[in-house]
Amino acid sequence: MQANPDVQDIVARTSAFIEEAVLPVDDEYDGDVTAAGGDDLRVRLQTEARSRGLLTPHGPMEFGGLGLDMTRRAPVFEAAGYSLFGPMAMNLNAPDEGNLHLLDQVATSIQRERYLGPLARGEGRSAFAMTEPAPGAGSDPAALRTRAERVDGGWRVTGHKHFITGADGAAFYIVMARTSGEPGEARGATMFLAPADAPGITLVRHLRTSDRSMIGGHCELRFDDLLVPDDDVLGEVDLGFAYAQVRLGPARMTHVMRWSGAARRAHEVAVRYAADRMAMGQRLADLGMAQQLIADNEIDLAATRALLMDACAQLDAGQRASKATSIAKTFAAEALDRVVDRATQLCGGLGVTADLPVMKIARELRPFRIYDGPSEVHRWALARRAVRDLAGAGRER
Amino acid sequence: MQANPDVQDIVARTSAFIEEAVLPVDDEYDGDVTAAGGDDLRVRLQTEARSRGLLTPHGPMEFGGLGLDMTRRAPVFEAAGYSLFGPMAMNLNAPDEGNLHLLDQVATSIQRERYLGPLARGEGRSAFAMTEPAPGAGSDPAALRTRAERVDGGWRVTGHKHFITGADGAAFYIVMARTSGEPGEARGATMFLAPADAPGITLVRHLRTSDRSMIGGHCELRFDDLLVPDDDVLGEVDLGFAYAQVRLGPARMTHVMRWSGAARRAHEVAVRYAADRMAMGQRLADLGMAQQLIADNEIDLAATRALLMDACAQLDAGQRASKATSIAKTFAAEALDRVVDRATQLCGGLGVTADLPVMKIARELRPFRIYDGPSEVHRWALARRAVRDLAGAGRER
Amino acid sequence: MQANPDVQDIVARTSAFIEEAVLPVDDEYDGDVTAAGGDDLRVRLQTEARSRGLLTPHGPMEFGGLGLDMTRRAPVFEAAGYSLFGPMAMNLNAPDEGNLHLLDQVATSIQRERYLGPLARGEGRSAFAMTEPAPGAGSDPAALRTRAERVDGGWRVTGHKHFITGADGAAFYIVMARTSGEPGEARGATMFLAPADAPGITLVRHLRTSDRSMIGGHCELRFDDLLVPDDDVLGEVDLGFAYAQVRLGPARMTHVMRWSGAARRAHEVAVRYAADRMAMGQRLADLGMAQQLIADNEIDLAATRALLMDACAQLDAGQRASKATSIAKTFAAEALDRVVDRATQLCGGLGVTADLPVMKIARELRPFRIYDGPSEVHRWALARRAVRDLAGAGRER
Amino acid sequence: MQANPDVQDIVARTSAFIEEAVLPVDDEYDGDVTAAGGDDLRVRLQTEARSRGLLTPHGPMEFGGLGLDMTRRAPVFEAAGYSLFGPMAMNLNAPDEGNLHLLDQVATSIQRERYLGPLARGEGRSAFAMTEPAPGAGSDPAALRTRAERVDGGWRVTGHKHFITGADGAAFYIVMARTSGEPGEARGATMFLAPADAPGITLVRHLRTSDRSMIGGHCELRFDDLLVPDDDVLGEVDLGFAYAQVRLGPARMTHVMRWSGAARRAHEVAVRYAADRMAMGQRLADLGMAQQLIADNEIDLAATRALLMDACAQLDAGQRASKATSIAKTFAAEALDRVVDRATQLCGGLGVTADLPVMKIARELRPFRIYDGPSEVHRWALARRAVRDLAGAGRER
Repeated sequence: MQANPDVQDIVARTSAFIEEAVLPVDDEYDGDVTAAGGDDLRVRLQTEARSRGLLTPHGPMEFGGLGLDMTRRAPVFEAAGYSLFGPMAMNLNAPDEGNLHLLDQVATSIQRERYLGPLARGEGRSAFAMTEPAPGAGSDPAALRTRAERVDGGWRVTGHKHFITGADGAAFYIVMARTSGEPGEARGATMFLAPADAPGITLVRHLRTSDRSMIGGHCELRFDDLLVPDDDVLGEVDLGFAYAQVRLGPARMTHVMRWSGAARRAHEVAVRYAADRMAMGQRLADLGMAQQLIADNEIDLAATRALLMDACAQLDAGQRASKATSIAKTFAAEALDRVVDRATQLCGGLGVTADLPVMKIARELRPFRIYDGPSEVHRWALARRAVRDLAGAGRER
Repeated sequence: MQANPDVQDIVARTSAFIEEAVLPVDDEYDGDVTAAGGDDLRVRLQTEARSRGLLTPHGPMEFGGLGLDMTRRAPVFEAAGYSLFGPMAMNLNAPDEGNLHLLDQVATSIQRERYLGPLARGEGRSAFAMTEPAPGAGSDPAALRTRAERVDGGWRVTGHKHFITGADGAAFYIVMARTSGEPGEARGATMFLAPADAPGITLVRHLRTSDRSMIGGHCELRFDDLLVPDDDVLGEVDLGFAYAQVRLGPARMTHVMRWSGAARRAHEVAVRYAADRMAMGQRLADLGMAQQLIADNEIDLAATRALLMDACAQLDAGQRASKATSIAKTFAAEALDRVVDRATQLCGGLGVTADLPVMKIARELRPFRIYDGPSEVHRWALARRAVRDLAGAGRER
Repeated sequence: MQANPDVQDIVARTSAFIEEAVLPVDDEYDGDVTAAGGDDLRVRLQTEARSRGLLTPHGPMEFGGLGLDMTRRAPVFEAAGYSLFGPMAMNLNAPDEGNLHLLDQVATSIQRERYLGPLARGEGRSAFAMTEPAPGAGSDPAALRTRAERVDGGWRVTGHKHFITGADGAAFYIVMARTSGEPGEARGATMFLAPADAPGITLVRHLRTSDRSMIGGHCELRFDDLLVPDDDVLGEVDLGFAYAQVRLGPARMTHVMRWSGAARRAHEVAVRYAADRMAMGQRLADLGMAQQLIADNEIDLAATRALLMDACAQLDAGQRASKATSIAKTFAAEALDRVVDRATQLCGGLGVTADLPVMKIARELRPFRIYDGPSEVHRWALARRAVRDLAGAGRER
Repeated sequence: MQANPDVQDIVARTSAFIEEAVLPVDDEYDGDVTAAGGDDLRVRLQTEARSRGLLTPHGPMEFGGLGLDMTRRAPVFEAAGYSLFGPMAMNLNAPDEGNLHLLDQVATSIQRERYLGPLARGEGRSAFAMTEPAPGAGSDPAALRTRAERVDGGWRVTGHKHFITGADGAAFYIVMARTSGEPGEARGATMFLAPADAPGITLVRHLRTSDRSMIGGHCELRFDDLLVPDDDVLGEVDLGFAYAQVRLGPARMTHVMRWSGAARRAHEVAVRYAADRMAMGQRLADLGMAQQLIADNEIDLAATRALLMDACAQLDAGQRASKATSIAKTFAAEALDRVVDRATQLCGGLGVTADLPVMKIARELRPFRIYDGPSEVHRWALARRAVRDLAGAGRER
């Protein structure tokens, strides 16, 4: 990616940090963050990132961040994503990065001090508790069933969540609960802040997902009579769905940035492998079918970046950009998956072993076609928008 | 496409011109430019375009053009391409548009007056005579076999060309011929300007191609002892391959612009069809499989534009952008073909009839995956570049 | 295809006939049957086929046919389909072939003499008038709107049809009309036989479709008070939908047979082209990307045949085989289209000209993904069946 | 699959065995055979299979097998493959099944007693030691570098192997070593039988592959001065490449059989999930995009089976069937991968967790596109064959 000139230095330093300090651990533990040390590893790597001036590049400057906008953060996040542990090491991982953005937009000054500051400084992690088991909130957030009832001085939250990324070991949660309306109605949700050690929060289990690099895992949680004081209501009561939208677009795009880095690594590893390996009496990299795999990867990576940068420019211009981010997310999740699949194929037998880092990237990347909206849900929304825009007026051609 | 603000007015006026003056003829004659009147039609439509201030939007201002750079011409060309006759009507068709660009870069002041001016003002068409029958210049220009021998005061050109777009009725040709070296060597070519009525030029036949909207057709030519005076050598002797590169990148991108317009029309027609038609008791446009076709079209159109605009920005910044234009061309040719194929499928039986404009667009668009470099040749070049860039230096993964 | 031993001789003689007598005309006229002579050509070629003992190989022996079952006719039809005019030349074209099958199953002995015999002997063509303009019978036959009202000694038929293949010049029509029920109900249709010159039949126009090889075109018809005597009711009143099913499965498969031949020709032409043509200093056929196109064609052709033969075996065993024929039709229509597209790409510039027969085959084949059920409708039916079969009973996974 | 009537009972009993005895263990241990008990589990399940008369259905009857030919074993193997542990449980796993076939064709009577009998009766496992690290035997077996030198009464084998499936815990190995010629020559290989505990065999390590269900893993081995007596030479000296071909075709097809079962399970699980789950106010299974995923799976499964059964019929007829098995293997490996990918997508978030068995099947299936010949190598061979068959004679069409 041709980085904006004023971040080229940050990008270069990020790449150096990743290569020197992060990739060795990533590869030694095959991308398994728990095996590699979990939060101990995180603290160690973030300390190093902080000393290099690379921690939280998207964070507000008042809390030590670099304040990069979407366009500028794209190449930095991609460089960080080159290692599966890179986003954690630089404190730009999901869900923290999206939560930080949300808090920066919505939090009160007390909440900024209590929650946003520590998050930006890497003092603790967070989780975003929205998704619920069927028939609750999933691809359709309006199905939200977790309830918050008014009590004196606050709210009492009861509900069941799963796929809560990073929940184990998080310092606090942002919890979506219904303060009015019924499941199926796209209104009436409120966001609550809750320290992870608040009474009434139970971590039921870790879902055994294909990926292993996300610190804190993907957890099932129960909230039983969790009491949240009024001070910890995030934003206005009943506006939770609107805030979720604020969080959504940028969060989609930062996923694309990070996964672009990981997919690029798989591609680069495969190209170097193909350049070194002989097959049929030629360099593998000179065989036409290998060239096709390589070229298709170049095309998919370039198209992903072009769509990403277009969406980032819209977001930086203050637009909601829901069409652009939806297209970029859907395209990227599928294209990057193809990139890693082709890289696997290029590496032959070693491509499905831990001797090369391709296999682990495939394992981590696959779920991106499902979370933050499955490709099918994005396509449904894109089609409805197109029909409305093109056929709304009955103009006949 | 979100057009640059300072061309939004030109885009809007282009769309109005296309809809009011061009589409009716296009549809009446099913995109067959010969049936619709050929050069008589061209003159009539260009007169109208001129009167609306829309002729040759990319042309130098000294000759009445609007002087739009690549980024600015993109949305204008796309709006023109909405009709198969639109590019001809606004004098921004291939090969004239690429020839104009080349002349603007390389021509002497006499050549500017004699060739560039009339071309920019729509007073006559041109052709670019490079491609030869096997085993001559094709995907590999270095195979060039047409010869130019030095004679007193000029050159004598002999050779065989085919797929020369727009040759029938052109006012002049730009002819690539070998002034030194042997077929297979990527050096030694020179460009010559030749009035179409010069002795020694024979139009052998029209190739019977699937497309019918290109005025002047795709022709087979012979040059037998064509004499070209020194004044009509275009640029330096032996630098023809370098000039061909100058022409190539922008010409690829303007193809993408024009065909994006045509493909978008197919998509829009199909969406409106699907919004009007009932199937299985629902609107066709509300059925999931139809929505998938529509959404995939939106994604392909958006990715095409994002890659196009990225390449245009590089070209406008003075870069050669050969990787970016190669990726954009390859992706676009395949993506736009998919768009029109999905539009066909959405329209059902009527999609393969002339009752809707989809079928003709499919017919016109298919060859774009072959000319200006078949997708396979672009992939070969992209793969070689990637191997060189990634594996050339022994940087550890 | 490895033909059943007892038809190998017929296949070989078919191939010889096609090559000697049919392909030269096909290629001379670029597959345009009207330009090539229409019914005059048909009579001439069928006379030759008859003299070679190759006419109507699927026809009942009592009428001079060869009585081949589905399994045996497959390689013969494929060999005939190698030329776009081959099926007409051997009287095994749609819709005649399906109509013959239907008459053989359902017709009275008088109808056999009057309609089936002449059809089997190639004395005249037929058409099958079912499809109607929206909102009538199309992908959903139950939408049938053409009405037949009881009159003394017969029925009076009124309605509007389109896409009636072969209608212009047909000797008789089989007309689907509603004798009871309402549009949307999958019952109440009846089939009627009507000589083409019966009063009340109007050929409105030829639809201008992409294909040009089907004799009699694809027509729009009107029936205005067409009187059909009781003797010309085909089968039982109100059982028309059931008879349409009888016709449907085999008719789908014979389309696959014929188009397999056409696609195979495109593939073979392309492979020979690639074996002769040099590119990048090697035979085109030895370049990896060309090899991939060739191999993918081999795979698609083989899979098409395997699915076809499986469905034919089921049909010959007396099964309705609606799942197998639906899968084979859907796969084949898409796979053969891919085959021809890859062949086009292999042939480069010539692939989109009439200098090679690939382009015309592409043009003829594309509609097959739409008629006899668009791919989307087949997929809808296949999915419903799968859900019913797999999830109907509550068997635990 | 419609099984041959005389194996329907075996298929039904296989399915019952799998469901009752094998799937519960498979699912409890997420398909990790080591965690589930390794060879202890194998012995326990095979004892149960033996008592049900289902052990080694392809084995010679003299050793207690059922003697099923390729056509008959297909539905049985598919039913076994429904569980990742099923092939092990019924002793029809790779590489034992291919080794048994090879021994049955080539072994001396002493070798039959010593190696084939125990293998057929499930008394011990085997491995096939051919593949070597680069630049040794891989996709190109002729690159074989392991050497066997003549010594008194036998041979001394030295070499390096990897990806030796089932090596850890195997009772014996079949070792490919070069007895004449040089790496790159497709001649001069010999097969040797060696008990796993023979001196000179070192199990270097387990490759850490994505799959975990293959007992004995995929190992790296070294042979250092391994002495093989003449009695343990398998077949004739220097004919090893020919025997490898004997083994190859059927082994490819039994892989397809087993993986068809696994992919079918993923599909069935996904369809049942989609039938139970509500989304957007409808059953997920009734949404068009879900229907498309389901239908495409049905098509891919059917085409895989049709190609498989065609190849099996050729093999049972005594043909080498290298084209048919190459096509079937290539298509199946890609199609079944698509099936499982679509099943994953249908199951949404749960599709990438161990709560459903889809994710583990994806992990196990992916390498099949690489082993037994990567898709690219098969395509290369198919293209060369097509060019030779179609363009060998210079017939021009």
